[in-house]
Amino acid sequence: MALDVVIMAAGKGTRMKSTRPKVLHTVGGRSLLQHVVQTSASVGADRILVITGHGAAQVETSIRESLQLPGLHFVRQEPQLGTGHAVQQAVPALSAAGTTLILNGDVPLIEPETARALVEACAGKRLALLTLALDDPTGYGRIVRRGDAADGDVLGIVEHKDATPEQRRIREIYTGMMAVPTERLKQWLGRLRNDNAQGEYYLTDVVAMAVADGVPVVAAHPRSETEVLGVNSPAQLADLERRYQRQQADRLMEAGVRLADPARFDLRGTLQCGTDVDIDVNCIFEGTVTLGDGVRIGAHCVIKNAHIAAGAVIHPFTHIDGEQQGAKVGEGALVGPFARLRPGADLGAEVHIGNFVEVKNSTLARGAKANHLAYLGDATVGERVNYGAGSITANYDGANKHRTVIEADVHVGSNCVLVAPVTIGAGATIGGGSTIAKHAPAGELTVARAKQVTLPGWKRPQKAPKAG
Amino acid sequence: MALDVVIMAAGKGTRMKSTRPKVLHTVGGRSLLQHVVQTSASVGADRILVITGHGAAQVETSIRESLQLPGLHFVRQEPQLGTGHAVQQAVPALSAAGTTLILNGDVPLIEPETARALVEACAGKRLALLTLALDDPTGYGRIVRRGDAADGDVLGIVEHKDATPEQRRIREIYTGMMAVPTERLKQWLGRLRNDNAQGEYYLTDVVAMAVADGVPVVAAHPRSETEVLGVNSPAQLADLERRYQRQQADRLMEAGVRLADPARFDLRGTLQCGTDVDIDVNCIFEGTVTLGDGVRIGAHCVIKNAHIAAGAVIHPFTHIDGEQQGAKVGEGALVGPFARLRPGADLGAEVHIGNFVEVKNSTLARGAKANHLAYLGDATVGERVNYGAGSITANYDGANKHRTVIEADVHVGSNCVLVAPVTIGAGATIGGGSTIAKHAPAGELTVARAKQVTLPGWKRPQKAPKAG
Amino acid sequence: MALDVVIMAAGKGTRMKSTRPKVLHTVGGRSLLQHVVQTSASVGADRILVITGHGAAQVETSIRESLQLPGLHFVRQEPQLGTGHAVQQAVPALSAAGTTLILNGDVPLIEPETARALVEACAGKRLALLTLALDDPTGYGRIVRRGDAADGDVLGIVEHKDATPEQRRIREIYTGMMAVPTERLKQWLGRLRNDNAQGEYYLTDVVAMAVADGVPVVAAHPRSETEVLGVNSPAQLADLERRYQRQQADRLMEAGVRLADPARFDLRGTLQCGTDVDIDVNCIFEGTVTLGDGVRIGAHCVIKNAHIAAGAVIHPFTHIDGEQQGAKVGEGALVGPFARLRPGADLGAEVHIGNFVEVKNSTLARGAKANHLAYLGDATVGERVNYGAGSITANYDGANKHRTVIEADVHVGSNCVLVAPVTIGAGATIGGGSTIAKHAPAGELTVARAKQVTLPGWKRPQKAPKAG
Repeated sequence: MALDVVIMAAGKGTRMKSTRPKVLHTVGGRSLLQHVVQTSASVGADRILVITGHGAAQVETSIRESLQLPGLHFVRQEPQLGTGHAVQQAVPALSAAGTTLILNGDVPLIEPETARALVEACAGKRLALLTLALDDPTGYGRIVRRGDAADGDVLGIVEHKDATPEQRRIREIYTGMMAVPTERLKQWLGRLRNDNAQGEYYLTDVVAMAVADGVPVVAAHPRSETEVLGVNSPAQLADLERRYQRQQADRLMEAGVRLADPARFDLRGTLQCGTDVDIDVNCIFEGTVTLGDGVRIGAHCVIKNAHIAAGAVIHPFTHIDGEQQGAKVGEGALVGPFARLRPGADLGAEVHIGNFVEVKNSTLARGAKANHLAYLGDATVGERVNYGAGSITANYDGANKHRTVIEADVHVGSNCVLVAPVTIGAGATIGGGSTIAKHAPAGELTVARAKQVTLPGWKRPQKAPKAG
Repeated sequence: MALDVVIMAAGKGTRMKSTRPKVLHTVGGRSLLQHVVQTSASVGADRILVITGHGAAQVETSIRESLQLPGLHFVRQEPQLGTGHAVQQAVPALSAAGTTLILNGDVPLIEPETARALVEACAGKRLALLTLALDDPTGYGRIVRRGDAADGDVLGIVEHKDATPEQRRIREIYTGMMAVPTERLKQWLGRLRNDNAQGEYYLTDVVAMAVADGVPVVAAHPRSETEVLGVNSPAQLADLERRYQRQQADRLMEAGVRLADPARFDLRGTLQCGTDVDIDVNCIFEGTVTLGDGVRIGAHCVIKNAHIAAGAVIHPFTHIDGEQQGAKVGEGALVGPFARLRPGADLGAEVHIGNFVEVKNSTLARGAKANHLAYLGDATVGERVNYGAGSITANYDGANKHRTVIEADVHVGSNCVLVAPVTIGAGATIGGGSTIAKHAPAGELTVARAKQVTLPGWKRPQKAPKAG
Repeated sequence: MALDVVIMAAGKGTRMKSTRPKVLHTVGGRSLLQHVVQTSASVGADRILVITGHGAAQVETSIRESLQLPGLHFVRQEPQLGTGHAVQQAVPALSAAGTTLILNGDVPLIEPETARALVEACAGKRLALLTLALDDPTGYGRIVRRGDAADGDVLGIVEHKDATPEQRRIREIYTGMMAVPTERLKQWLGRLRNDNAQGEYYLTDVVAMAVADGVPVVAAHPRSETEVLGVNSPAQLADLERRYQRQQADRLMEAGVRLADPARFDLRGTLQCGTDVDIDVNCIFEGTVTLGDGVRIGAHCVIKNAHIAAGAVIHPFTHIDGEQQGAKVGEGALVGPFARLRPGADLGAEVHIGNFVEVKNSTLARGAKANHLAYLGDATVGERVNYGAGSITANYDGANKHRTVIEADVHVGSNCVLVAPVTIGAGATIGGGSTIAKHAPAGELTVARAKQVTLPGWKRPQKAPKAG
């Protein structure tokens, strides 16, 4: 049976006070709408129809760039004349029969299980509403049931402002999501009227039509309130972000990852962990990150698009961002504190990268070390190389980038400059303070160093007297 | 009608276990007393009379240095013989008529609206108490009203220890703040007696006098409990700090600022934001900071006294402290990670400052870059300059600071030293590893580099055998 | 009267999903079992008998390495046939008489006061159970008392699954800890039977035996639920970690330490503070750290095994790790931001260590400064030395470490390399960019600098055209 999902994403989100369309704000690094589209895809939607309006072009471009889904279509709603009107725009694109699931582009954390339960409650023949009992239902539309019993037949939805005092005591509210037999939906949408104070077409009016037509109205429920929370303001966005992060933290801990503080953990992408991974406080993971068995991530690290192999230790204050190219840390490597790995950093096993060291687009073979205040860019570094404190690969001549090759067992002294393109032969030693612009032969000591001289009689400058 | 504010600030704060007078401890970067004095000024007080005692000189100096207010006066209370005695000290300085508002120097988060409501409830003719209903009123003085109704006439305040079991069930408590007709206050203070167990003069005794004199006693209420919380211990100070920070976070989000985690945000000063500003977790703002439209602040940044223009991106682990002089980041500039901007750093549009780079008292024109491990101090850097990794301006000769001028389109190689005062002419190139102490002409390549030589036959040092 | 403590530490902890035995997971930097053993020692246990099973060798080694206690013994339980069976293994090692206290190796935060209260309730003659009233006791064994009164005689423990509906309403639960007259314990353990569904020997069966033998059964209570929480999953471990950290934060604040955010504070060891210590958000202390009067620790610092003297200021993003050797910061010293002190860093009074500076195994005398991008390793630095930006001690020749001696009042220029072993005489000046490999005489200017030359006619490289 065909399953179509209609996602309402036309709203402006005035309270966000942003130039960005509301559904493009992000939770966990993905836009609100992207969450809902991906959830729709994960429940096996045949068609996903996103109703756009405010910032439609921007919304459509953003989603198309981040997701390639065959059944994804955008339908414009212009002007915006209510929720019923929004769904009406999708009618031409709906399947002939089956079930239509209606979700909200600004309610990002709906779980696939819940969406599925709603579709199953509909079963192509019932009107299924997603409802939830709240301790304080003030402001929400209430679910009116026959005989007021929690499992009585659903008779309708009454808006808070229209509710009698007795109805206001009802705690079961409508979440804005429903699943509808598609054929019925088309009929009912055709009968919607806008003769109300707002002059809008309300989707919720289909409930009365279902009751009138003898179509059973049933309810499904989310597992938690978090699933049905919408975003209308930066405060709500931040609240959802924290709930989402806590969910992710819980999932990781459930899988055995040890977090020093689940409230100080952020994952904006996917994190795959081996066994016995320890993550200290305030770490942020973005993009796609994998951590091997026994990896330890120190406090205050930011790690994006990186693969960190088993047994590696990332010390505090380490920033790794592999961007598109990725960054790799080998088995048992030690990185940080205050280290930065950039795209194309590829550290072999047992490599040590120490404080105030930057590595970009460089391969370091097993056991190489750059422990202090150094830059390795566009370099190929052999096994067991010791790259001295303060040394720099001058990889950029102002116009083009060139490679530096440092063969195995080289010792580069402190504060050297290796002017690329240049090769340092295996086992060579480079004296401290040297600028090396030509090939340094293997096994030999090469230096570029001025003679040390003492200038007798020189006097230190004196503190200048203040003018005046 | 004259409004005088008396602020009680004579207490010692023994539980703070600090050598600092209690009211000088800070919340949100301002002393407790400074909060209360500024709130007093904001409600239009004609005179602000601060009663000092413990650490009086230190308190007075601290406030005078941080605030210049014409109506601000200090009155010493020595010794401290109770709250009534404290206010008695202010009598000679009070206006002839009008209203006197009595606040506490260790209750910092009272809102101007609440202070104003209290003054209006007094209206120069009633005794107005600031009261609040608490779920657990244990320990507080209870508001006794006629007929026990919430809006019955106030008959008095009864201390917890003196309360009957029935009175202990009263949830409405006195917060320590009141507004009093000034003429009445003077009369009542003159009639206070200290024939009690503590031998103190209690300000709350004026309630009974008001009732006896037929002066109506009324109540005003704060909007939240936070407004009336006092500080007596480091734990209470920390609690108020977090409440205050959450309020500030909420206010910013209300204005459209997006905070990744409102519980991990600290503002100790003022932060002015354009639209679409994103602030990641654990950032701290101090002093006066402005962020233009679309500015993004990465995680773990500390930013003080800085102006960051529209579209600039501050990467994680960036420390900016403009101190008195300020620091500026231009439109679309990129700063960090691990960057430090110090006083007088003035970055133009599209400037890039990368990792482990320090900038102090230097101007960088549009498009200049210093991306790696560098120091720019007392420098004037032209447009499109590329300042190499590891390069340093030697701005200090041990006695005086000198300027380095790097004109437009210069390329400075890696690990150079520019010995100020020195000028690098427009379009010049400085070879890597050069120490430049004299003018480098425009458009030319200038180097100071020793010849690269290989010393044949040199042997690497061997690991010394352990002594023994 | 002899006090023996039996600690149950044989469990596997399957839900931890870790290769590490459960009791070796850490809270506050110490293993769960280490907490319980240390608490046992602190209440004056004569013998501490740890029952090991899963990962026994690893558990025993870990505890023996971290704690030297004369009365500590390990007893293997293999296979694991229940709690009663576990204690049975300890019987041969128990004292002839006195009290046996039974604790759990995975319930780390039991307070000594509570353990003591339990022992006193036993008094060598009663069976004392540690019990607690929970709002939601679901799943726990209930304490059945005569007449259902909170102080009625204890009649037994009934497991949740065996409890009648009435018994399930009992809120008092058994925590798994008890104190037993040792002679009685031995008798009762000998009478345990495993004719139950699990085929295990349950320690709780001794309660019925006590009742049958007319031994009074009494209860003691912990001060908070935290004391009796066990660890079975990473989520529970994280929860206990946060509770423990909050306790430590509260204890420090009680002593006068000011924490900017008690929820963002981590102590994994011991922290001793003077008066007026301020600690900003997100700091982590490990090992043994002492902070003198008036010390201020900036945000985002990680400090381990260090002594920081009065009045020192540690700026944000500072990493200090003294490891075994320790690190010292003198009175009034300024360190950071982005500074790293490693083992053997010993800073005198008024020393300044600035951004991107690393100090290892070096002594800096009063007033010495290394403010920018520098490395000091294996150096002895005299008073008032100014160590220039970008300068490096080349302390490692590839085989051995050597010392650099910089005598008082030396000025080292920028980007210098001091090739150890080398001495810079008092008052010497080293020109910027010099590599110094020989003694530099006192009071003189020494340089090693190539002549600055301009190469006329040189052309900058042009951007290479894209291949194609």
